[in-house]
Amino acid sequence: MEVLQALYLTTRQESLKICSPLMTEDYVVQPAPFVSPPKWHLGHSTWFFEEFILTKFSASYKVFNDQFGFVFNSYYEGAGKRVVRTNRGNLSRPSVSEIVEYRAYVDQAMIEFLQSSAITERQRYLIEVGCNHEQQHQELLYTDIKYILGHNPLQPTYADVDMHSKIKENAGWLPVKEGLYNIGYNGDGFHYDNEKGVHQAFLQSYQISSELITNAQYISFIENGGYQDHRYWHSAGWAWVQENAIKSPMYWQESSEGWKHYTLAGLKAVAPDGPVTHISYYEAFAYAEYSGMRLPTEQEWEVASSLFDWGQRWEWTASAYTPYPNYVKEVGALGEYNGKFMVGQQVLRGASSATSAGHSRPSYRNFFHAEERWQFTGIRLVKKIE
Amino acid sequence: MEVLQALYLTTRQESLKICSPLMTEDYVVQPAPFVSPPKWHLGHSTWFFEEFILTKFSASYKVFNDQFGFVFNSYYEGAGKRVVRTNRGNLSRPSVSEIVEYRAYVDQAMIEFLQSSAITERQRYLIEVGCNHEQQHQELLYTDIKYILGHNPLQPTYADVDMHSKIKENAGWLPVKEGLYNIGYNGDGFHYDNEKGVHQAFLQSYQISSELITNAQYISFIENGGYQDHRYWHSAGWAWVQENAIKSPMYWQESSEGWKHYTLAGLKAVAPDGPVTHISYYEAFAYAEYSGMRLPTEQEWEVASSLFDWGQRWEWTASAYTPYPNYVKEVGALGEYNGKFMVGQQVLRGASSATSAGHSRPSYRNFFHAEERWQFTGIRLVKKIE
Amino acid sequence: MEVLQALYLTTRQESLKICSPLMTEDYVVQPAPFVSPPKWHLGHSTWFFEEFILTKFSASYKVFNDQFGFVFNSYYEGAGKRVVRTNRGNLSRPSVSEIVEYRAYVDQAMIEFLQSSAITERQRYLIEVGCNHEQQHQELLYTDIKYILGHNPLQPTYADVDMHSKIKENAGWLPVKEGLYNIGYNGDGFHYDNEKGVHQAFLQSYQISSELITNAQYISFIENGGYQDHRYWHSAGWAWVQENAIKSPMYWQESSEGWKHYTLAGLKAVAPDGPVTHISYYEAFAYAEYSGMRLPTEQEWEVASSLFDWGQRWEWTASAYTPYPNYVKEVGALGEYNGKFMVGQQVLRGASSATSAGHSRPSYRNFFHAEERWQFTGIRLVKKIE
Amino acid sequence: MEVLQALYLTTRQESLKICSPLMTEDYVVQPAPFVSPPKWHLGHSTWFFEEFILTKFSASYKVFNDQFGFVFNSYYEGAGKRVVRTNRGNLSRPSVSEIVEYRAYVDQAMIEFLQSSAITERQRYLIEVGCNHEQQHQELLYTDIKYILGHNPLQPTYADVDMHSKIKENAGWLPVKEGLYNIGYNGDGFHYDNEKGVHQAFLQSYQISSELITNAQYISFIENGGYQDHRYWHSAGWAWVQENAIKSPMYWQESSEGWKHYTLAGLKAVAPDGPVTHISYYEAFAYAEYSGMRLPTEQEWEVASSLFDWGQRWEWTASAYTPYPNYVKEVGALGEYNGKFMVGQQVLRGASSATSAGHSRPSYRNFFHAEERWQFTGIRLVKKIE
Repeated sequence: MEVLQALYLTTRQESLKICSPLMTEDYVVQPAPFVSPPKWHLGHSTWFFEEFILTKFSASYKVFNDQFGFVFNSYYEGAGKRVVRTNRGNLSRPSVSEIVEYRAYVDQAMIEFLQSSAITERQRYLIEVGCNHEQQHQELLYTDIKYILGHNPLQPTYADVDMHSKIKENAGWLPVKEGLYNIGYNGDGFHYDNEKGVHQAFLQSYQISSELITNAQYISFIENGGYQDHRYWHSAGWAWVQENAIKSPMYWQESSEGWKHYTLAGLKAVAPDGPVTHISYYEAFAYAEYSGMRLPTEQEWEVASSLFDWGQRWEWTASAYTPYPNYVKEVGALGEYNGKFMVGQQVLRGASSATSAGHSRPSYRNFFHAEERWQFTGIRLVKKIE
Repeated sequence: MEVLQALYLTTRQESLKICSPLMTEDYVVQPAPFVSPPKWHLGHSTWFFEEFILTKFSASYKVFNDQFGFVFNSYYEGAGKRVVRTNRGNLSRPSVSEIVEYRAYVDQAMIEFLQSSAITERQRYLIEVGCNHEQQHQELLYTDIKYILGHNPLQPTYADVDMHSKIKENAGWLPVKEGLYNIGYNGDGFHYDNEKGVHQAFLQSYQISSELITNAQYISFIENGGYQDHRYWHSAGWAWVQENAIKSPMYWQESSEGWKHYTLAGLKAVAPDGPVTHISYYEAFAYAEYSGMRLPTEQEWEVASSLFDWGQRWEWTASAYTPYPNYVKEVGALGEYNGKFMVGQQVLRGASSATSAGHSRPSYRNFFHAEERWQFTGIRLVKKIE
Repeated sequence: MEVLQALYLTTRQESLKICSPLMTEDYVVQPAPFVSPPKWHLGHSTWFFEEFILTKFSASYKVFNDQFGFVFNSYYEGAGKRVVRTNRGNLSRPSVSEIVEYRAYVDQAMIEFLQSSAITERQRYLIEVGCNHEQQHQELLYTDIKYILGHNPLQPTYADVDMHSKIKENAGWLPVKEGLYNIGYNGDGFHYDNEKGVHQAFLQSYQISSELITNAQYISFIENGGYQDHRYWHSAGWAWVQENAIKSPMYWQESSEGWKHYTLAGLKAVAPDGPVTHISYYEAFAYAEYSGMRLPTEQEWEVASSLFDWGQRWEWTASAYTPYPNYVKEVGALGEYNGKFMVGQQVLRGASSATSAGHSRPSYRNFFHAEERWQFTGIRLVKKIE
Repeated sequence: MEVLQALYLTTRQESLKICSPLMTEDYVVQPAPFVSPPKWHLGHSTWFFEEFILTKFSASYKVFNDQFGFVFNSYYEGAGKRVVRTNRGNLSRPSVSEIVEYRAYVDQAMIEFLQSSAITERQRYLIEVGCNHEQQHQELLYTDIKYILGHNPLQPTYADVDMHSKIKENAGWLPVKEGLYNIGYNGDGFHYDNEKGVHQAFLQSYQISSELITNAQYISFIENGGYQDHRYWHSAGWAWVQENAIKSPMYWQESSEGWKHYTLAGLKAVAPDGPVTHISYYEAFAYAEYSGMRLPTEQEWEVASSLFDWGQRWEWTASAYTPYPNYVKEVGALGEYNGKFMVGQQVLRGASSATSAGHSRPSYRNFFHAEERWQFTGIRLVKKIE
């Protein structure tokens, strides 16, 4: 149990640590529907343990506040009514201090539970889910905080962190032969239902870049009129560009000294040799078309992932998010975790510098809508073997 | 100058006093487009003095923060760009403490200005405008705080205040004779441009109620199907009722123990003998139609106002907000204070228990859109002399 | 009865005559929510007689088609359910020929009714209402047809009609003295409930222009930056200009040869000495502000109307549409004709070249929303007597 | 060339034949953004030949009307500006008769071209594309006409056609073994770029139903609360059900005599043994979840398609519409035909009774958005081999 307890405590402390540079006001706002207020993340990840562990398995547990289920349920239809997502930023209460108190209360109960109970396999698994779930929200904390501060006219700094790395100058092309490959999670560690079920897939031969596309390469796309030429874009992507007057990645602004971008460390010059980030699937696809290449499918990415370094940026793939063969979703409310999102979204593979340590693996399937770009997203290309 | 300085200091302290029961988080949110975050009110009323007094007349004054003009300008097109109204709740910064610091900085500069300068008549007038402007925002602080807390699922209490009074049991009918009457402000105190210009108006004879409509009377309208009978409603009002599923005044909820309503002191039973409030113009008009009577015009209200008690509730009138004969708007940016709103709104007369002391007079013209009801609004009826 | 029958027949024929230049397809479309398809006008004005005369008073009358009440009711809540206004253009059926048949069927029944019955005063009045109602729709037929053809990329011609006249070169200023004047309809001809009830109003002295504002004058406003200077505009008007990128009256387009506008006779050069038309209340107000003058109130217009020529253009007044003192609305569904629109709209006085002969009088109160401009609207100014 | 000319003429005549039961008014309206007015289909399919054949290859050809390109271009960014899709129903002109004239004019020029020219392979291909393109619009003509008439309150009949067939009583389960299969078009007939490029895919073993789901089976889903149980639905599907209050397939209405549905032959009782149709992907997926089975992937469908009858209904698959390995899009404007839609849509396989004869093959990839259901769509299930 010590391992589980250590995982629990480390995870829980990390969430508060991520928020520590914030002012109270920063915890409250929701400047876009896809962003959640930091205090909501703190409450929601706590409610998850209360709802799925303590109220289920701890006979003596008394719910902290009856109404928190309504306030902090995200999307579990099976777990009752909830505040609609777009209204989270309208709620000044519960206050940050009440939520911190809520966290401490639940942590106390969880530690007692971890120490006193003969924990079943199912319970252990659920607690692991809760920790992994909170790790996912830790990544969202980073991206939502960036959105909140980066869209404030005062552009305040979060902290002196650097989430941008350098790309090696000469990308190599890594060949993969045609053949049958195993896809899916194949181990005994923690993993989600959506990556379960190892199965064979036949891949045509291809070669994949050892490196992500750099800012310099992307600037060249911009300067060559990439955002003005409909031929590179999906029909829906082209409409998105027009309606939103998109001209560059999110957080970029042109200045007399060239391109700058808002980072968690404040406004900085865009480094030519850094990987381009905060681009939508539409932009990733358009860049690939412009280059005469394409994005990898998620199977191609997974098979080749041992050949290159990854983990800096979530990488858009050409694959829509659909179930693996013989996919079986979790029972109960946890069945809502992944399966119900398997329509209309795009798979991303890899991880980003905002991803929690230990929360990445080659089989991990992340997913977002084609227009979303407030995550740390990047581009890796694939081409035919001539 | 002592009088002016006293007005200034009293006014400025009152705003902070109104906010003192709030938690930091309550200062930040904007749950509806017509509500502003309390911290915005505190900043905006301060910016008003900075923009229209200090930067204009105090040579030594140094602006607190260059970007606050953008953040805290409300609608003065003549005073530069501004955050659009619906985005105020997306801004976590400047923080409450920065705004409190901003207020102290401006107050210091204003007091120096008041003490050292030979203040001109124009400057005195502008400072009075600034104080009256802040008093208007004090009323909005009450109504916006009520909206913020009253629309939170936890329904927190603001403070143990009572903004609800009792109505005398037997309303009397006060007759006014047909004839020519003077309308408009006729004194030498502070007043706005929209009430200036005393002019004659001819009124038909009428009688006006000595009392406002009570909750008991309004409940009877509800119970008699008032919200289901289109004949009582304006066409636009009927559409508003349907689209928003309106069934009672704002803040009311039906319970097994009868009607309750959220008040600044928390959820309370609706007192039968209290004046009905938080009703839109549409509802006030429908109630009058249901009663076979009508609302007074603003001229009728003003002429009769010496005959009854008023000041508990803003009273909807039958008059649209249009300029008085020979209306001349203020010069410069202050000309935007009133004139540009003279289309599509309805006049309210009187004052409410949230109105600052000294901020009411019989000639005062308040105005809101027909569907707005988060202010403390009420109904007084008029009928023909038989 | 012959007079009534003659009015009936003349009115009914006129509607078909107005539509005679149309192709079948032109009868069907609804390119804006405020426009109705011509076939709807033809059906609705017919349904009015069926619903309010024949089914009420003609025992032998059999309704033409049970479902036409649903299709052709415009807004009479008291007369059952109806197709919502914005969906009228989605209905290909009933076809134009079915509607023409419907008209003939109702006309036949109406003529029998007119000839055989001892018609009561009430019935005579209701038939007059029906004819006046159809005349109002005849004006809408002109303006809606203009909108339908003028917003088609092929800009087809309706017919060789000229609805544009010349303005005398030197406008004179016509003085009116301060005093008490009678307002409202004071005769025994047909009139609406909203103009009933002669009453006194006190007016300050003013002078009113003998002429409407010309295109040349309005072009000068445009060229002097009138659409770019917020000081001339209501707050709501300024937002309307920005959101809709308004730069000229409706139907105007700038060309290398100067301003052109779509007319029912096709695209023509804007005549400098013609009256400016197709402007919203916001634009009329802004023009007046720019000129340092103002628009007349509806009382000022009515009192002065014997001093100048009018009838070319509906003239925006400074008055919001509110009830006259002691206004009593019609009983039954006809009570919905006027009263329920008395909020949020602006009064226009006069008439236009699209108004049916006999459908104008000095006391007539027309009304539209401040942003509407597909009617033939114009500007007449008023100023103080120095 | 006779074969090509015959294809051309047959195709062109079929479009007019489909429209022959319509009244002129039916050609004009667009009651939903995804529907196009029949006259637009007639014009657009004609413009396709004018734009991509005649103006490119026939030196003597003179365009019928310069502005028709603007009116009848659907989405070819490479072929100039166009009327936005949602405005097509606002255009009364060009009239039906002008469009019929346009068709005759282009047909005349095409026949001359076909007879006189030495037609190149590329030209022959493009003409085949034009014919196949028009066949696609013929299917849309059926579904759009059904929508136009079926959403009219008078529910008029199109013609005495029956697009509903019977399902055999006992569905069999057809097993397919695990293995590598060829996918994609593999012949020398006409086909689209999106089905080109035969490639291998590895499939797990599965069994597929010989029959489509019947109305009786679907009614049982409805009666068992299928539309009220979130567990069967995608998150986006559940939101769609709630927001649109979906309770049955499109065109269904409950009556005292049981379920009825609008068909092109008028309102009819829902036949228990007919295949359920007019359901969205969300509904197809929910039905599969309810049944404890799943929809086939498009590869599974294609591989098994020789084992069952198909062609009555487009069958929703579990596959998102993404490019085949090594997909290469057409050059020029035709490259916009398929590739740019390969995001956010779902693949359907098979054909429907509204599909043109000769316009179906096992490799054909149709695609629609998950919520669209005005096409003739159906459900076939797949399950694991135990």
